Amino acid sequence: MYAVIMAGGRGTRFWPRSREKKPKHLLDIISDRTIIQETVDRILPMIPPDNILVVTGRKHARSLMNQLPAIPSTNIIIEPEGRNTAPCIGLAALHIMKKAGDDIMVVLPSDHAIADPGKFRQVIQAAAQTAAGGDALVTIGIKPTSPQTGFGYIEQGDSIESGTKEEVFRVKSIREKPDFPKAQEFVQSGNFYWNSGMFIWKASTILKSISRLMPDLYSGLTTINETLGLPGEKSALRRIYKSLVPISIDYGVMEKADNVYIVKGDFGWSDVGSWDALWEISAKDDNGNAFIGGSCVISTESTGSLVYSPKKLIALAGVKDLIVVDTKDAILICQKGNSQDVKKIVDILEAKKLGKYL
Amino acid sequence: MYAVIMAGGRGTRFWPRSREKKPKHLLDIISDRTIIQETVDRILPMIPPDNILVVTGRKHARSLMNQLPAIPSTNIIIEPEGRNTAPCIGLAALHIMKKAGDDIMVVLPSDHAIADPGKFRQVIQAAAQTAAGGDALVTIGIKPTSPQTGFGYIEQGDSIESGTKEEVFRVKSIREKPDFPKAQEFVQSGNFYWNSGMFIWKASTILKSISRLMPDLYSGLTTINETLGLPGEKSALRRIYKSLVPISIDYGVMEKADNVYIVKGDFGWSDVGSWDALWEISAKDDNGNAFIGGSCVISTESTGSLVYSPKKLIALAGVKDLIVVDTKDAILICQKGNSQDVKKIVDILEAKKLGKYL
Repeated sequence: MYAVIMAGGRGTRFWPRSREKKPKHLLDIISDRTIIQETVDRILPMIPPDNILVVTGRKHARSLMNQLPAIPSTNIIIEPEGRNTAPCIGLAALHIMKKAGDDIMVVLPSDHAIADPGKFRQVIQAAAQTAAGGDALVTIGIKPTSPQTGFGYIEQGDSIESGTKEEVFRVKSIREKPDFPKAQEFVQSGNFYWNSGMFIWKASTILKSISRLMPDLYSGLTTINETLGLPGEKSALRRIYKSLVPISIDYGVMEKADNVYIVKGDFGWSDVGSWDALWEISAKDDNGNAFIGGSCVISTESTGSLVYSPKKLIALAGVKDLIVVDTKDAILICQKGNSQDVKKIVDILEAKKLGKYL
Repeated sequence: MYAVIMAGGRGTRFWPRSREKKPKHLLDIISDRTIIQETVDRILPMIPPDNILVVTGRKHARSLMNQLPAIPSTNIIIEPEGRNTAPCIGLAALHIMKKAGDDIMVVLPSDHAIADPGKFRQVIQAAAQTAAGGDALVTIGIKPTSPQTGFGYIEQGDSIESGTKEEVFRVKSIREKPDFPKAQEFVQSGNFYWNSGMFIWKASTILKSISRLMPDLYSGLTTINETLGLPGEKSALRRIYKSLVPISIDYGVMEKADNVYIVKGDFGWSDVGSWDALWEISAKDDNGNAFIGGSCVISTESTGSLVYSPKKLIALAGVKDLIVVDTKDAILICQKGNSQDVKKIVDILEAKKLGKYL
């Protein structure tokens, strides 16, 4: 079995901690390990380091290798530029075919949080069993706790015999990020799950699906495949990637395929998509305050806030639902619920040519 | 004419900028000059440096001399400990009697802000003329703009012939800090003024009033006076000050005296008593934000806030009415209206023995 960890994101929503050189997955935002270290730690009990591939960009390859010394450097697959998840997954599938002939491939985002890793591995095991049994594309669905509009939704169909403790279902439909009323409807129906972005399938199965549903991508992958491990690999990759349309695997394959299955992932999942989301999963005091990063915090009449400060003492007086993040050269103070504005701030910094803060 | 600048305060309400070694009046909080430098600058056009006395504690005498190089060091009067304003003013009066026989003495707090210094000097001039004319205790009253409960109030009586452009009134009564309904009543009546803590009188007049209304203080001052400029001065000061009851000149003399007059001070006064008060008098952008201390601030959807940051970039997202103060080792984030909690924070730091932040 192989794991493919997708580590291409920039994670600007964690500015000022995330920077161009330090995207979210390279940060120790959730624990004292970085998020990608946690992602690898979590899968290691079932997949050895030699079988863990990480797909990333050139800029972050070095930091990534430093953070993951157990992973052979030849397992770090470098994309010349980001083209969303379909090309990334296709490229990783080629590598697995080349290394192993064919095998199960567990595709994992690099930057999610999972509270119960044991349960997580149990679910992955069940999904792998289903994927091994035939031409199945298996996804992990998360029971929605609120009508989020930032996630895709998966509609479950009939239950199938999985041969494991986990229930496995056919997928009836996969829906793009819905508007709020639609999301409410999905949640109320009880038949919809958040798309976690985790996929389990055989490398040959996903390549077959790509050949059928994304012929342009497949033809690019074929060209790349001819050069894999040869001197022309890098330039072929560069040439082909330039021509690829950025498409997600959800849109390119999953929404159109008819061999899609879902296993429910009830293991305390969060995509940690924003400072707000980090507050949600952090330990809090009686006033709902989460103080992280070793900060000494004095608080009077303050509630519902997240403070990250590794160096300075922070004093809060009478504040409510704030995100406070202190870094070497910049401090963010954001009203909770407005953490999508962090992206706007990064845009402003770019527009103002304040590159040293990016 | 002499000026006596009272610089004994600690100003904890400006933590984390104010520290034990740097009380409020030694900070450049309002402009690029420190508050006490502004206080001296303001009076210099009418009183030469040789006639400006500054009363302070031992701890801050050195910084004070460094900040006020024009003032002779012999004009820095050191109190062995703070005993409120009555002993401070009495001691300064002794020094003036010794230096000049007798003279007008303009008593000024060290840490107030005044928007129109020209008008201020005009008012002081009128007050001095009134004080010179006889045994008058003259105060400067500020027209109240809101029912503040943190100030004493002065009730005006009949107008007197002042011989200047400024109107001068007898004082009918002086009231301690009132409760809120009382303060509302005072403001509505139109006859009450805030007590600014600025006083103008002859040195001999205030000493005579002290002898009549505060005989214990007067007897202590007499003992000190016998040692002024002699080797025993310091130890006499220490001995007498230890025995003095801390009493304000307002309570000890002004409330009980019958020769009290008021000149109205319409010169844009603020006691700058808190971060909130600093926001009030600061220049603001269209969203009511005041950014001071050279900070680069990126703001999205944020209003009514004060940011002080000399070094780091500050990003505000969706916040309302916040005070943000970044210093070398501590950051304050305070909801406006809660800036009295800053004192509580200092108390907590003391209780937790976090002395390095004090």
